[in-house]
Amino acid sequence: MSALPIGVFDSGVGGLTVLRALAKHFPLENFIYLGDTARLPYGTKSPVTIRAYSEQVMNFMIGRGVKAIIIACNSASSQVTETEWKGLPVYSVIKPGAEAALSVTKTLKVGVLGTRATIESGVYPTAINAMKSGAEVFSVAAPLLVPLAEEGWTNDSITDLVVARYVESLLEKQIDTLILGCTHYPLLKDSLRKICGPDIKFVDSGDALAAWIERDLESGRLKPSQDLKRTIKVFKTDLSNHAQAMTRKILVGFSIESIEGVDLK
Amino acid sequence: MSALPIGVFDSGVGGLTVLRALAKHFPLENFIYLGDTARLPYGTKSPVTIRAYSEQVMNFMIGRGVKAIIIACNSASSQVTETEWKGLPVYSVIKPGAEAALSVTKTLKVGVLGTRATIESGVYPTAINAMKSGAEVFSVAAPLLVPLAEEGWTNDSITDLVVARYVESLLEKQIDTLILGCTHYPLLKDSLRKICGPDIKFVDSGDALAAWIERDLESGRLKPSQDLKRTIKVFKTDLSNHAQAMTRKILVGFSIESIEGVDLK
Repeated sequence: MSALPIGVFDSGVGGLTVLRALAKHFPLENFIYLGDTARLPYGTKSPVTIRAYSEQVMNFMIGRGVKAIIIACNSASSQVTETEWKGLPVYSVIKPGAEAALSVTKTLKVGVLGTRATIESGVYPTAINAMKSGAEVFSVAAPLLVPLAEEGWTNDSITDLVVARYVESLLEKQIDTLILGCTHYPLLKDSLRKICGPDIKFVDSGDALAAWIERDLESGRLKPSQDLKRTIKVFKTDLSNHAQAMTRKILVGFSIESIEGVDLK
Repeated sequence: MSALPIGVFDSGVGGLTVLRALAKHFPLENFIYLGDTARLPYGTKSPVTIRAYSEQVMNFMIGRGVKAIIIACNSASSQVTETEWKGLPVYSVIKPGAEAALSVTKTLKVGVLGTRATIESGVYPTAINAMKSGAEVFSVAAPLLVPLAEEGWTNDSITDLVVARYVESLLEKQIDTLILGCTHYPLLKDSLRKICGPDIKFVDSGDALAAWIERDLESGRLKPSQDLKRTIKVFKTDLSNHAQAMTRKILVGFSIESIEGVDLK
C-alpha cells in the first residue's frame, strides 16, 4: 500500500481532464497536479524547450514525494519517452491512446488531432504502427484549439467553425476513430461531436490512461492507496484569476484541498 | 552620436510590428529584438509573472549593450511603469498610444482592445484620463486575437467573426477611435477594418511610439546613429520553425543579420 500521491502535470488546464478521469476512477488515490501556466502553452514550442520544461516539472514532482508521474500533456509526452524518471514510474498519454484507438477502430483508419509539437513529432503513427501493421494514421495539427479551450469557449459557434476546418481532411479520409491527441480537447467534445457526427469513436487520453493505471495497480507495479480521505492539491506556476476559475470549473464535484503558486526556476 | 542598438522586446511576433515601424522610420538605427517565445504569450498571465519576465528581458538587453529599451508589448508595458532601467531610457507603448488616440479622436470616445493583462491593469484609461479630462475610454479584453495572429490567420473569415464578437460592444458605444492595444493586432488590421468600417481611426503602437522616439532623437535625450550599414539582430527564447517563418514574413523587405536562440534563465 502507498498513500503517496500520484503526480499529474500539464502546461495548463488541459491535464485537468486527465486528473478528473483519474480522480473518478481511483477514489482512494491522492493526487497532486501541476499546471505550468507561467509558460503555457507547450504545444507551439520547440522540442528542446518542451523537454527542458518537462524535466523541471518531473523534478518538482520528485521533490514533492510522489509514487508515479503522469504526463497529462500530449506535447510533453511527445518529448519524454522514458517510462521511468529517477526511479519513479512515468506514464504518458501516447501509448494508452494508441492502444485504445486500435481497440475500437474497425476500418484501421485512425485520425489524430494534436498540437503542432505532437503532430510534428510523429509519436502517434509511430506508436500505432509498432502495435499493429496495416493501420493508417492521418494527423492534423490544430494549434488554435488550446487557446479556445483555455478561454472557455467550449460551446460556441466559432469553436465549431475552427473544429470543422481542422477535421475536414480527416473526415475526407473516412476515419472511424479520432484520437483527441491533446488533453485540452475533451473540453471541446461538444463541438467535435457536432462536426464529426455520431459514428466516429473518440479516444480520450484520460480514460485510456486510467485503464493502464488500473492494470498497474492490480499487478502491483504501482502500490495502491486506501486513503478514505484522499486529497487533491493543485499547483500552478502562474496564479491568474482566470486559471483558478477554470480549474474549479473543470474539477467541479471534486474537493480541491489547495491551489498554490510555485516557481520552477 | 551612438551606433549602439536600440533593444526592442515582446513575448512573440507582435513586437515585430513595432520593430518594423521603427526600422522604417529610422533607417540608420541598429536594432536588436528579443521575442520571449519560450514563455509566450504574456497577456493571459498574471501581473507578477509578466513583471518578472520583463525584468529578465531588460537585464538581457543591458547585457547586450543597448542605448534604449523599447517594450513592444502592451501586456509588459502595463507592468513596467519605469521610464528608466539601470540608467537606460525605457519606452513603453502605452503613453504614445494614449497620446496618439487623443490627437485623433473628435468625440472623445476611445475604444481599447487588449490582452486580459493589459485591460485588467487599466493602464489606458489611467493614461488617457491623466492627459485629458472628459475622455471616455471603453475597454475590451480580446485574448484569442494573439493566437490567431501567431498562427498567421490574418486574413480569414473565422478571424473576422472573433474580431466582430470582441468589438461589438465598442461599436455600440459609438467610439470614433480604437487603440490596437496589443502589438499583435496590426497583423489583424484587415479584419479590424472590415468589422469596424472605414470611419473609426486606428491607433497602432508602432507608429505612435516612432513619433516619441523621433522627438527624443531630435532633443538629444537619445543619441542618434549614422550607421549606413545598420543591422537588425533577432533573438528568441524558443526557436521553433514556425516562429522563424513568421519573423521573416513580418519583417519582409528588411535585412535580418541573424535569428539566434537565447536562454534567459
